[in-house]
Amino acid sequence: MSAPRPAVPGAEPVRGRGMELELGSSTQTSHRLLAYSDALLSIIATVMILPVAHTKIHPDQKLGESVQQLLLAKIAVYLMTFLIVTVAWAAHVRLFQVIELIDDVLALLNLACMMIITFLPYTFSLMASFPEVPFGIFLFSVCAVVIGLIQAVIVAYGFYHPHLLNQQIQVSENQNFYKCHILKVILRGPILCFLAATCSFFFIPLSYVLLGLVIVFPHLTRFITWCKTKIVGHRGEEEEHHSLETFTFYLSEPLSKERVEGFSDGVYAIVATLLILDICEDNVPDPREVEEKFHGSLLEALSEYGPNYLAYFGSFVTIGLLWFVHHSLFLYVTKATRLMGLLNILSLAFIGGLPLAYQLTSEFAEKSHNEIEAIQVSCVITFFASIFQFAIWTTALFHERETLHPFARYGGKEHAFMFAKLALYPCVSLGVFLLTCLLSEFSTAIFHLMQIVIPFAFLALRIFVRISLTVLRSVMSLSRRKVVLLEEEEACLSPTETLS
Amino acid sequence: MSAPRPAVPGAEPVRGRGMELELGSSTQTSHRLLAYSDALLSIIATVMILPVAHTKIHPDQKLGESVQQLLLAKIAVYLMTFLIVTVAWAAHVRLFQVIELIDDVLALLNLACMMIITFLPYTFSLMASFPEVPFGIFLFSVCAVVIGLIQAVIVAYGFYHPHLLNQQIQVSENQNFYKCHILKVILRGPILCFLAATCSFFFIPLSYVLLGLVIVFPHLTRFITWCKTKIVGHRGEEEEHHSLETFTFYLSEPLSKERVEGFSDGVYAIVATLLILDICEDNVPDPREVEEKFHGSLLEALSEYGPNYLAYFGSFVTIGLLWFVHHSLFLYVTKATRLMGLLNILSLAFIGGLPLAYQLTSEFAEKSHNEIEAIQVSCVITFFASIFQFAIWTTALFHERETLHPFARYGGKEHAFMFAKLALYPCVSLGVFLLTCLLSEFSTAIFHLMQIVIPFAFLALRIFVRISLTVLRSVMSLSRRKVVLLEEEEACLSPTETLS
Repeated sequence: MSAPRPAVPGAEPVRGRGMELELGSSTQTSHRLLAYSDALLSIIATVMILPVAHTKIHPDQKLGESVQQLLLAKIAVYLMTFLIVTVAWAAHVRLFQVIELIDDVLALLNLACMMIITFLPYTFSLMASFPEVPFGIFLFSVCAVVIGLIQAVIVAYGFYHPHLLNQQIQVSENQNFYKCHILKVILRGPILCFLAATCSFFFIPLSYVLLGLVIVFPHLTRFITWCKTKIVGHRGEEEEHHSLETFTFYLSEPLSKERVEGFSDGVYAIVATLLILDICEDNVPDPREVEEKFHGSLLEALSEYGPNYLAYFGSFVTIGLLWFVHHSLFLYVTKATRLMGLLNILSLAFIGGLPLAYQLTSEFAEKSHNEIEAIQVSCVITFFASIFQFAIWTTALFHERETLHPFARYGGKEHAFMFAKLALYPCVSLGVFLLTCLLSEFSTAIFHLMQIVIPFAFLALRIFVRISLTVLRSVMSLSRRKVVLLEEEEACLSPTETLS
Repeated sequence: MSAPRPAVPGAEPVRGRGMELELGSSTQTSHRLLAYSDALLSIIATVMILPVAHTKIHPDQKLGESVQQLLLAKIAVYLMTFLIVTVAWAAHVRLFQVIELIDDVLALLNLACMMIITFLPYTFSLMASFPEVPFGIFLFSVCAVVIGLIQAVIVAYGFYHPHLLNQQIQVSENQNFYKCHILKVILRGPILCFLAATCSFFFIPLSYVLLGLVIVFPHLTRFITWCKTKIVGHRGEEEEHHSLETFTFYLSEPLSKERVEGFSDGVYAIVATLLILDICEDNVPDPREVEEKFHGSLLEALSEYGPNYLAYFGSFVTIGLLWFVHHSLFLYVTKATRLMGLLNILSLAFIGGLPLAYQLTSEFAEKSHNEIEAIQVSCVITFFASIFQFAIWTTALFHERETLHPFARYGGKEHAFMFAKLALYPCVSLGVFLLTCLLSEFSTAIFHLMQIVIPFAFLALRIFVRISLTVLRSVMSLSRRKVVLLEEEEACLSPTETLS
């Protein structure tokens, strides 16, 4: 593993010569490796929605019952897989905040790690199909342990070749502290899984509890410390302790904003393309059928699929706009705290549910007794996806000095517009949901047309916010003018600022 | 569409205040929008391999025949879709080389454009299922025309708000020239499609010729100019003409390296994850079947799928390593010329075929008369995917001053190693192909084991290349020593360079 090392006698001095030469030795920047890992992980996390969306529901069944019986189990599998993959992703982010440069060995080790992570959804669905068989749990846990071991090897390799590490850790005197800390972060999950694997042969429910802990653990410990500081009031003291440790910034708070964006983009992209996959597989008519049933008229045959096309475009618009809101939001975010990361992941988990919403609304377009339920499920999914986005923004505002760009802070130029953008989808989906409760004659066609119209609402929103802000400010500046006469001159000198 | 503009009286002066303030107005950098578009486009391009891979082949059929009859048509559809999407992608790259900043309107327009592009594969598969029906061609062409129109609107919007344009075009005096040029690049395809749509009602074969031209046209014109310059010898004159036009660099040669990487990453990532999708859908045993057939033993039931797991890991390793080679290659590439872009796309088209290779080798693991053919198909796909990567490298070497990092040029430190890396897969796949022709007893199990072993070959490769280079250079330095005695001292002063 460490073979390439002794053959490069000049590696250490090369580093001192600056960035350009680093490329020449076997050392590389990790940017593209991380982008590729993000893409793989986000697709893997989302892909398990397919078995849910492809569940065949008999048209005669009432959707209410079948949702409860059939879908809930599969949705649980999807959500758990999603969360478990995101735990693996978070550990991966931490790891590559410590190790900033890579070489060929690290790249190959990382690919090996990715290979096992992409295998996780399969072992998880095995576990879900055979909940009472210890072997299912065992296989899943073994995968998790192997992932942990590979990542531990990456850490060991990184600290054995310190020129690959983050600059600040490189110059630090207590490298061992960082090594232990990052190993703790990475091995926490695998150790719990190892315990679960051993337990699986004696007492299966305990295994499930342990596996559940893997997801909850990071947030649980964080929540406990937060409660402790709130109750005991040790906050000041602890902050002092933290400020003594100069480099704690990777060890505690912020995730890498770039990687949060990369992971989110992957989820949005795969969700948008899963839709067309379904259309391509289900809605190409059979040539023979067209000949017999529609007398060779392709147009007539396709008109049968009209609702599907409408559902496709409606869903794509929804996904596209939710991405657009996310994009706008993260333009103003300068740092993502861990809580924001968690909220983002929850939002993405619901985004991943949108193919299910598409399937339901396109399948039950004409079966009226399921139609309303299908629309309601879509509204619920959209609502939660967008409300968690809104929550990211709210959380960011609590620490606006650290997390937000000056323009988006309270009273900043773009603050009101950002608020309106983020509030649009929760309001619309909640409104439609309430409408479906009141009206009994709401059709999926109207629903999808509404989805398609929303982009124009976004454009109108900007104008609306601008006008109302202008009115508001001119009123305020008028009232101000009455109070201080001297300020009038200043206001005349900079009319741009008061107007815009 | 242009509504937000008049409401920002301070937009023009803001721009002058530098990068930081740009965020505050509605203007944004396009980086993330482009990354998202790349992800969408690459997934859409690749996804059409699924209908090919999922073609059910009857076990009794000989694969040789069924490949010819059933698969070839679908493979053609896949390849054509892939190439058409890449044409759309190339136009998109050109477009956003001209427009460097975006605002909300452009972001929404781009999403609309993406929506139609993601719909292209569906219309294309309709067209392929009903080759004689004019409506299929008509629908496809209409989509292409709409894409062109949206992109034309984006161009018009960009030139109407010049602060969004590339800096160099912004200060240029003949903006109109650039506007016309980029419109020509963008509308070339849609105009051909429009002609095809009108032709489809009179004479269908002509429509197909026109659609074929869409893919070939950019390369055809380029090839013709190249031939012209070779024959007539106007090269020098033309180069002079080019150097007069200061900003031709977006108009002629290089693609954006970042976007080539982004698009490639997307293809590699989706291909790697399509594999696990198949495993998740096909290889989770039915609980009832396990109870009846295997007396409740999950382990026994899973051992049935052994060959599938082996095929999965083998294929993942192959994809991962081809990504790794691509990654290593593009670390040294500083600019991607159009020919390199074309070769990259051809390589990616074969990468997209790997799920088919996986399906064939895992399906025919035990049916011996198809086994060899399945392995041969896999070898052919791998060979072409890797040989086109090798061709990128060769092409880059022809213009190494412009396209390659100094370290990778002839005689550069990493040159030999890069060569070895790129040559490994073509050699191995060719070797296996020849082996299958000679031996009649080659099994898929051995094939997949070979695939899994190759990463270690990569690690060994580095050591091997190092050793041989060291031997070579020490021999050379010895012979040099005999000639010039004075140089001996210098060699002693810089032993690092001669050794490594």
